[in-house]
This record gives sequence, structure tokens and C-alpha cells, in this order.
Amino acid sequence: MGDVAAAVDRSAVSAELQHWLERLFPLTRSLTGEGNRATLRALQELVPLTIREVPSGTRVYDWTIPDEWSIRDAYIAGRDGRRIVDFHASNLHVVSYSEPVRGRFDWSALEPHVFTHPSLSDAIPYRTSYYRRTWGFCATRAQYDALAADGGPFDVCIDSTLAPGSLSYGELLIPGRSSREVLVSSYICHPSMANDSLSGVLLSAFLAREIAARPARECTYRFVFVPETIGAIAYCALNEAAMKRIDMALVVTTVGGRGPCGYKQSFDPAHPLNAMIEDVFAEAGITSFARYPFDIHGSDERQYSSQGFRINTATISRDRYYEYPEYHSSLDNLSFVTGEQIAGTLDLYRRLIDRIESRRVFRSRVPHCEVMLGKHDLYPAAGGALRPIAGGRTELDLILWTLFLSDGTLAVSEIARRLAVPEAAIAETVARLEAKGVLERV
Amino acid sequence: MGDVAAAVDRSAVSAELQHWLERLFPLTRSLTGEGNRATLRALQELVPLTIREVPSGTRVYDWTIPDEWSIRDAYIAGRDGRRIVDFHASNLHVVSYSEPVRGRFDWSALEPHVFTHPSLSDAIPYRTSYYRRTWGFCATRAQYDALAADGGPFDVCIDSTLAPGSLSYGELLIPGRSSREVLVSSYICHPSMANDSLSGVLLSAFLAREIAARPARECTYRFVFVPETIGAIAYCALNEAAMKRIDMALVVTTVGGRGPCGYKQSFDPAHPLNAMIEDVFAEAGITSFARYPFDIHGSDERQYSSQGFRINTATISRDRYYEYPEYHSSLDNLSFVTGEQIAGTLDLYRRLIDRIESRRVFRSRVPHCEVMLGKHDLYPAAGGALRPIAGGRTELDLILWTLFLSDGTLAVSEIARRLAVPEAAIAETVARLEAKGVLERV
Amino acid sequence: MGDVAAAVDRSAVSAELQHWLERLFPLTRSLTGEGNRATLRALQELVPLTIREVPSGTRVYDWTIPDEWSIRDAYIAGRDGRRIVDFHASNLHVVSYSEPVRGRFDWSALEPHVFTHPSLSDAIPYRTSYYRRTWGFCATRAQYDALAADGGPFDVCIDSTLAPGSLSYGELLIPGRSSREVLVSSYICHPSMANDSLSGVLLSAFLAREIAARPARECTYRFVFVPETIGAIAYCALNEAAMKRIDMALVVTTVGGRGPCGYKQSFDPAHPLNAMIEDVFAEAGITSFARYPFDIHGSDERQYSSQGFRINTATISRDRYYEYPEYHSSLDNLSFVTGEQIAGTLDLYRRLIDRIESRRVFRSRVPHCEVMLGKHDLYPAAGGALRPIAGGRTELDLILWTLFLSDGTLAVSEIARRLAVPEAAIAETVARLEAKGVLERV
Repeated sequence: MGDVAAAVDRSAVSAELQHWLERLFPLTRSLTGEGNRATLRALQELVPLTIREVPSGTRVYDWTIPDEWSIRDAYIAGRDGRRIVDFHASNLHVVSYSEPVRGRFDWSALEPHVFTHPSLSDAIPYRTSYYRRTWGFCATRAQYDALAADGGPFDVCIDSTLAPGSLSYGELLIPGRSSREVLVSSYICHPSMANDSLSGVLLSAFLAREIAARPARECTYRFVFVPETIGAIAYCALNEAAMKRIDMALVVTTVGGRGPCGYKQSFDPAHPLNAMIEDVFAEAGITSFARYPFDIHGSDERQYSSQGFRINTATISRDRYYEYPEYHSSLDNLSFVTGEQIAGTLDLYRRLIDRIESRRVFRSRVPHCEVMLGKHDLYPAAGGALRPIAGGRTELDLILWTLFLSDGTLAVSEIARRLAVPEAAIAETVARLEAKGVLERV
Repeated sequence: MGDVAAAVDRSAVSAELQHWLERLFPLTRSLTGEGNRATLRALQELVPLTIREVPSGTRVYDWTIPDEWSIRDAYIAGRDGRRIVDFHASNLHVVSYSEPVRGRFDWSALEPHVFTHPSLSDAIPYRTSYYRRTWGFCATRAQYDALAADGGPFDVCIDSTLAPGSLSYGELLIPGRSSREVLVSSYICHPSMANDSLSGVLLSAFLAREIAARPARECTYRFVFVPETIGAIAYCALNEAAMKRIDMALVVTTVGGRGPCGYKQSFDPAHPLNAMIEDVFAEAGITSFARYPFDIHGSDERQYSSQGFRINTATISRDRYYEYPEYHSSLDNLSFVTGEQIAGTLDLYRRLIDRIESRRVFRSRVPHCEVMLGKHDLYPAAGGALRPIAGGRTELDLILWTLFLSDGTLAVSEIARRLAVPEAAIAETVARLEAKGVLERV
Repeated sequence: MGDVAAAVDRSAVSAELQHWLERLFPLTRSLTGEGNRATLRALQELVPLTIREVPSGTRVYDWTIPDEWSIRDAYIAGRDGRRIVDFHASNLHVVSYSEPVRGRFDWSALEPHVFTHPSLSDAIPYRTSYYRRTWGFCATRAQYDALAADGGPFDVCIDSTLAPGSLSYGELLIPGRSSREVLVSSYICHPSMANDSLSGVLLSAFLAREIAARPARECTYRFVFVPETIGAIAYCALNEAAMKRIDMALVVTTVGGRGPCGYKQSFDPAHPLNAMIEDVFAEAGITSFARYPFDIHGSDERQYSSQGFRINTATISRDRYYEYPEYHSSLDNLSFVTGEQIAGTLDLYRRLIDRIESRRVFRSRVPHCEVMLGKHDLYPAAGGALRPIAGGRTELDLILWTLFLSDGTLAVSEIARRLAVPEAAIAETVARLEAKGVLERV
């Protein structure tokens, strides 16, 4: 454990993440559309994603894939013809999934369609109107005031299309030795916001690339890049049998802030995934972190945790969604998030993958009576039976307890916890015993 | 919930109960006999009881139905021929199941057959001698003293018959929608005592009438009116298969006092029945009550809780048996118990039935991923996702959590407890979700 | 319970144990050899042991039965020809399993083969070299100093043989009524040391004799007298199917000290065996004792607790191995251990056997409804329903609760604990109910 983590050149990764942040930030992502495809195609440069399309109108459980949304231009021009609000300045200016509009509007008619941020006057808020046909603009407080001062009539244009097309998602399966499978999910539906959720998409892609580069893996990893909610639901519906076999899942989002580190627990607080995350924090020296209990609000863990799947799903975050003032606004930008910050959280996910990979269960190949240690050259040399080496236990203690407890159900980490010794001590003991052929992996 | 409770005219019920108390109080009930049949026939005016007869000598598990006991007269007359103790003054004067006696007795021969109350000098104690052939009189302390002063010889008469006949019980099945069945049992073997147990018999009959009058029921209700112990045992033996399918039971007794409210828990303290009773107390504003843990002494829960049935059985009481000074004496009379007092406890049982009826388990009809709330017109209007409405939860919270937790095993009340919100909030949420077809009742 | 314990003449047993201690103490026991056979043959005078031989070279799980070791003489003679260290003075002087040596050695060549006790200068330490071919002498500090002063050359002789032969063990099966089986194991491989482990061997043999002398037994008892580790492993391998059916086990060792009483728990702290031992201590008035949690170090519980068997195994000890200064030295001798001291611990094992024998599970033969107590002459006489007789419970309480709880899974002792009454009260109640045919043993 930790080998891969140690081998990573953090500053190179930070720089590369920064490059990708800047490259993908401007794209106009939504539930559907070319911005999503452009994002997925770009990610294919990092990992061999398969991009799949689900046609509009497809039924996925209780939902239906909506029409595809295309947006080319949108603006509000004042009496002098100048654009006071302009989609090309920020794709947040248009309410996502706005239907097309073109015409002249008085301020009184326009005003109900103009939204500002409730607390941050400099921010353009992020709004969507996915399943209700309407249109709208988001503006800073200054823009709003300028509109009010101008008074109109305004030249209003949303050059969008809502028409049958498809929803796009990306998928990558990285096979491992065992049948245990881990889902890693991030969402590609947010336009120009850096922490929520471009940071998650990039961390996920980088993590996939690293995992794929490992010479071998214990677990199989299923990476999905989906529009939130409808995309996750579509993925579940189209891969139901596979999804029912998932062992645990990670939803990667809001991982690029500078603020508090935390994790959202999976619905079963006793699931090993949660303990592993806390172990990662301890290992990384993070002593203060937020522990968000499972909640029915959140991201796509809502789908993966639903009755039909009940996949324990957790999220490690840095400045978690809902919690930072810039959330869902134009201030969640490249000043707020840097490649280096994402690299810091990537390190935590990498450590978690290391733990998932090294979470191993062994059973004795000599279940009846004791192993004859001397025969296998396992009997400790002088002192090995007497000198405590970990948690007050001697080398001999560790060997005997590990043999006693490795019954095919307790994981190495659980044995370590039981004996109150560092996990590395048991991992090392297990490695020796496995090499000697007296333990075998389950 | 609470609709029926609200619809009841408490003072009319109190008056009617008072009428029935006065009408049935004088009857001489015992394990068997005409007093029991008269009681059951009278109850048929309230509810369509079926009266059944079990012949003397019938084997019922470890027991045998005894001979039937008929009593016409009993007295002790002094030297002057006047009756010092007279059955016609109170049927408690004769030990229940006394064999016939007629003759002249000295005080020394009579005295071992005369019983007084250990602490209440004005009371005639209540005694029985069901399975041992003997006879006796119960008297007040003043009567005892008069007998002693008189000195005898006394003219002693117990004009009774012990002969093959039958044990009578009443039974009423009120069918409900589901196969869940609730047993309600009261005992008809006590002569002129009001709290123990005429109050229970009347409460039970009134409750049956109310339940039968409801337009529909979730559960099936099995009301039995049996002599205590032998009657309950006979009922179990003759209805064994049905009794093994009972979900829970109530033994209704000593419900007419003015004193402390309480309930005896069923043998499994974690059974929902116990929680429902405590919820009833809370709902009714009863903050101080006695919680009697299950005990092997008591009433017919002893039979229903036995290994062969193990039915969780509880009792809500007011001045519970054993606990009030007048217990098992002539002072447990119509001064001690009123129709109004019984009506008060009836209200608690009614509320409990409401809870049993409304204790419902649902499962999602959309188990995979989330329900699309908007499609079902379930997405809260403005504010519904933001404004806490119960226990700090918003309307949206309640909808999402209820969908998440309604997995076919958790009851509505348990979901409410889990979320720390009032049960009504979940009940209402469930109703909306069921109406929309996304939840279905199990 | 307690009858057998009461019938034992403690002083006669003490004297007899003292005789056996003195008789068997001098024998040179080891993993194999004539000393072991002589010990087992002597024990045959106490109990009808079967002595079995396992040939050298036999594979037993991960182990192989070693060559047999015979030792006839061993000494170190100084320049003047006098024996400074002499096997005939103490068989601890030679490292057990020493290969033969004969020759002249300088002090520098001899010194690495001479071992003294690290802290007790008067003690000869106990050393073995079972699976590594070498030789050595153990000496007191004074002897060591004399050797060093003499300076040599020394005449060194170990007249031993290591050659194919067999490992010997003794076995005794004492059948009981039920199929439940208790293993009692002690080890015969230690030469002249009294507490570890001749005390255990003798206690075990005496216990076997007493159990065999009982008119009947509930459980079957399997007594084994084996060399530690390799003997226990051989026994398990050669009796695998039988060993997999063992219910619980006792390893009897270090039972003859004067020091602290204690017990080593079996691996499952909740196993009834541990509670029974604590009950024995309470019964015997031992309020202060050491509770050693299960540890992977120890004696043959290591084998019996291994994954293939997982037999809950405990040890009651007095001056437990590892804990007393004289452990594994010539000072663990007949001054340290007396027959009387062993007799004291034998009393505790005897009480434990009484408890194991009396640990009984019953079920009602009248599972439906209550037993009619009167019919079975079980209804308590006057006062029996009123007067508390144990833990605040009346005779009637005990009868009713015992009938209620005897459901075929709860043991008598567990019923007692549940009701917080002395176990004897339930045992007596059960006996009455069984005699009346309303309870039957499972």
C-alpha cells in the first residue's frame, strides 16, 4: 500500500490538472448536448472512455430521456443595442434548458425571467429548468441594475433548440483479478463551474488513468461520467444487472476547494468503506474533517443507494456542495479551484483505492492445529518472540494471531483493528505467510 | 387516525356504559353456569356474539372442563332463624363453586368455612374453590362478629349443584382487509365486581361494536369473552390453528378505576404493540403512567404468551388488578367504577385500535433509482423544499426519506421514529405517495 | 449438583495426590520415550487409559512425529574426574532431545552448551531442543562457576539416542447419556517439574477417576494425556472427526501452586464455559482471581481452538505458567507443589464438572397454555404462592417462570440468571417439573 501514491509526481499532476481545468472549464455542459460530448471526447485523451448515447424519449425507470438542448447564443440588449447580458461572456447567463426566445420585451415582462444571486452581488447564479419549458437569464446584481436603469424595451434572444437527440455518457471498465467491483461516478452536466463539478470529473479521469496504469488490480473499477440524476438513472437502467453486483461506490464531486475536507458516509455507517475513508484521513494527517451522515439529498448516491441497488456510496470532498458561498454561481471558478487543490484530493482518493485494493481477506491453508513455524522458516530469530514490534505485539504474536484470525471472513484491516496494531504490521505478516504458502487469499 | 375517536360522543357512551354496568353487575358469574350465559346473551344486544358451549369433561390441553356450577341460594341463619349471611344480599357471600351443604353447624365447625377480608372490615372478600370440592362463605368483619356472638348452632345452606353441563363463551370475528389478526380477550367469570372484571367485559363489547361499525378495517379482530384461564385455554385448544396465526393480543381488564393508568407490556418489550401503547398515552396527554413489565402472573396473557402461541399480549388498565385495595372484594362495586371512567379507558383502546389500523408498511413501486417527483406532481411548490414542516424536515425531505425507507419492512411509525418527526407527517406523506401510485401497501 | 464434591474426602485425596506426585516426579518425560510410557502406565493404575503409539515419521497436519529420544546418562566431569553436572542428580541438567555427545571439551568449546537461569541462581533452567539437532546442559549458577573455575578440559557425555520409535499418548473415553462431549487434556512431556505440568496430569487423572466412578453422566468425557503441541496435534489428526464434535474443552495445567487462582478464557468470552468457571469461583468463595483473556500463546488450547476445530477451551490454574518465578526450572519442585494444593484446584474442576453435568436444557411437554398445577400436585401449599424463597420469587413464581422459559434453548443456569435467582432454585424447580412429566430434557 502506498507505493503508487509515493510514485506520483504531485507537482506534475497539479500542472496537468490545471491545464485540463482551463481547457474544459469554458464548455457549456448540461443534461445533454454538444458541450457534454466535447467534454467526454476530451477525456478520451486521458482514458479510453466509451461514449454512449441514449435517445431522447427512452424510458429509464420512472424517467424519460429529455429532448436534447443546443444553445448557440443568448443575450439581452439594451435600448442602445449593446448586450447587457451575454451568453458568450458566461454560459451561466442563460438558464440551462431554456427554450428559444426572440423578441422585444419591456422590463416588466422581462424581469420575471432575470435571476440574481440571493447573497453574492458579483455572482451570476446557476439555474436550470430541465423538465419545465421556460426560459431565463442569470445576471449579476450590477447587470440587473443596469437592466432596470435601461428600462427597455430590450432585444431578447435565446438561440437554443430543444429537439429529439440523445443523452451522452462515458464509461470505462478497468478489470481486476477478483469479481469485486467498485463504481466511480462523476457528473458532467454542469457548465462553467470549477468545483461543482469539473473538479470531480477531472479527478475521476485522472484516478481512472492511474488505476488503469497499474500493472494489476484486485478489484474491477467501473468509471462513469454521466449527467447528474437522469444520467445516473439511465446508466442504472441500461446496466441494471451489472449495477446490482457493485460492491461499493464513490461519487466524486466538489473536490477542488481550499476549504474543509470531509466525507459523506454511505447509508450503512458500519460499511468498511466509511472506515477506510477515515483511515485515509488519518494516514494523510488530516485530523479535522467533516463527517456528513448519509442524507437523502446529495448527488448520484441517491440513485445508487435506492432500494433496487442499495450500493454503499461515499464521497470525499473539499468544500462540499451546499457548503461554500460560491456554490452554484460564477464565483465557483478558476480562482476558487486550482489543479494543485484537486491534486491534493486526488491523493486521498488514490490512498482510498490503495486501501480498497489492499483490503484482503485470507484463510489458513493449515486450518487444523498450528502451523509448524520452524519448518516454514517462520519462527522468529532470537528476540522475535520477545521484543514488541507493533502495538505491544512481538513478531511471533503477529504471526500466531494472524494465522488464528485469518478465517476467510476477517479482512487484514479488521485483524489489525482487532489487535490494535498498525495495519501495515498485519499486511506484512500476511505477505510473509502467503509467501510461505500457509495463508491463501480468498 | 383519530377520526373514529373524534366522532364518538363521550357522554352518550358513558351513560350507556353506566346502564350496562348496572344491568350486568348483579349477575352471578363463575367458570360456568347460567350467570355466564345471561351475561353473554345480554352482550348479544351490543354485538352479534356467537355463544358456544364446551361440555364438562372435555380435555383441553392439560386441563378438563369442570362440572357446571348452579347456585340458587345460600345462607347462614342464626339461632333466631334470621339470615346473618345471605347470598341474595351479595353473590360474593358464597365461595364460588361451593358444593351443596345443608345442615346445622356449631360455630367451631362453621368457622373454618367463613372468610373475611384481611384488611377491609367492611368488605366481603371474593373467593373461589374451582378444582377442590369444598364450600365456604365470605363475610364482612361485622357479620363474622355477629356469627361469633350468636355462637350457633347455625342453619347453613348452600343450595348449589355441581353436575355435568358446559362452559360457555362468546366469540365474534370482525373481518378486515388483511390477514393480520388481533385478539381481544376479556373474562366473564367474576361475579358482582365492577372493575375486575365487568369493566373489561363492557369495554371490550363496546370496542367490538365500534370496530364492527367502521366502514372497513385493515386487521381482522377476534373478540372472545371467556371465563379466565380455563375458558382461555379451552378457546386456544378448540381454535389452535387460528390462534397460532394471531399477530398480537389485548387482554382487557380492570379498566374502570379512577386511579393510575398503566399498561402491562407483552413478553417482548420491543414488540411494536408496546410502543403503540406508549404513543397512545402521549397522544392522550397521559404523561404519568405505570409500565408493568411482562410477568408470568396476570390474566389470560399467560395462555396466549405460552410457548405454543407466543402471542405478544398487552393490557391497558386503570387501577390494575392486584394494585387497588378494593380488588377482589365487594368494595369493587358501582361506587368504585362508573360508566364515565370506563369510557375514559375505552378512549385509549380506541386510539390503540386506530394505531393498529394505521400501522402500515409500504414498499416502493419504483425501487430502482429515484421517483421523478415532478411527473407525479409530487415536487413541492416553492418553499416546500426549503421550509421545515416537521422535526426540522421539509416537505421534500419527508417525501424523499419516506421513499428511501419504505422498503416493505419498516412501518410508517418506525420511519417516523427513525426520522424523529411526528408520525402524522409520515402518514400524510405516505398517503400522498400511495395516491400517486409510487408506494404500495404491503 | 455438589453431591460428588461433598462426598470427597479431601485429606485422603491430598495424601494420595502427594504419593503420586512423589512417585511420578522423578521420571524423565519428553516428547517421546520411556519416561512418557512409564508415566502413562503408572496412570493406568488410576484410570483405564489406553496407551497409543504414533510412529516417528507420521505426518500429522503440518507436523511430523519426530524420532524417539532415549536418555540414559549425561554428565560433565572436571579435571579430577568428578561429575560437576550429573543427569542422575536432576533430569533437567540435560537439554531435552539432546543428541549424543562423548568427548573432551575445553571450557571455551563447552560454554556455549551450558545454560543457566536468567534470574534464579539456585535453579536449573528447563530447556528443550526438539526440532533442531544440538545438545546442551542446564546448570545452577554455582555449577556454572565451578565449571569456569575448573577450566577443563572436561569429560562430556550425553548418552542419548535419537532414532525412529514412536510418540506415546494416553486416552480414556467415559461415556455419558447425551452426545455432548467434553475434552480434558493435560500434557506429559515435562520432566521433573511439579506445577508445570505433573500437577495437571495428576489432577486430570484423579478427575477422570472420579467422573468414571459416578453412577451416570450426562456428558461424554474424553481425557487425553499427550505431549504438548505435537501430541495434541497428533491426537487431533488421528481423531479429527471425533474432535470436530467436541462441545468444549479443558486444558489442565499448573494447578498445584499456592499463588493466585485464575482462569484463561476460551476464545469466545460469551461461551457458557467461562460463565460456569466464574460461577465455580463464586460458589467456592474465591472472590479474587485472575481472568486471563484468550491468547494465542499458552498450551494445547492453541490446537483445539484452531480454525479446523474452534473448540472453546479454558484452563483453571493456580500459579499459572509464565507467571511464577520458579516456572520452567528445578525450583518448580515438590517444595513448591503439594498434593493438598492440587486437591484444592481439583475441587474447582470437580465443581466445574458438576456444573457442566447440571447444565441442562429443558422444554415443556405442555407447550400450549399453562400447566394445570393442581392436577400434577405442583400447586404450592399455603404460602408457597406468597412467600419469597429465592431472589424475591415465590415457589409459584419459580414454577411458572421455569415453565414459561424452558423452551428447549435456555439452559437452567441461563434461566436463573434471567430471573436473578440462585441457580439451585431453578435446578430444584426443574427437577420437580421433570419428575411430574411436564418438562423434558432436550
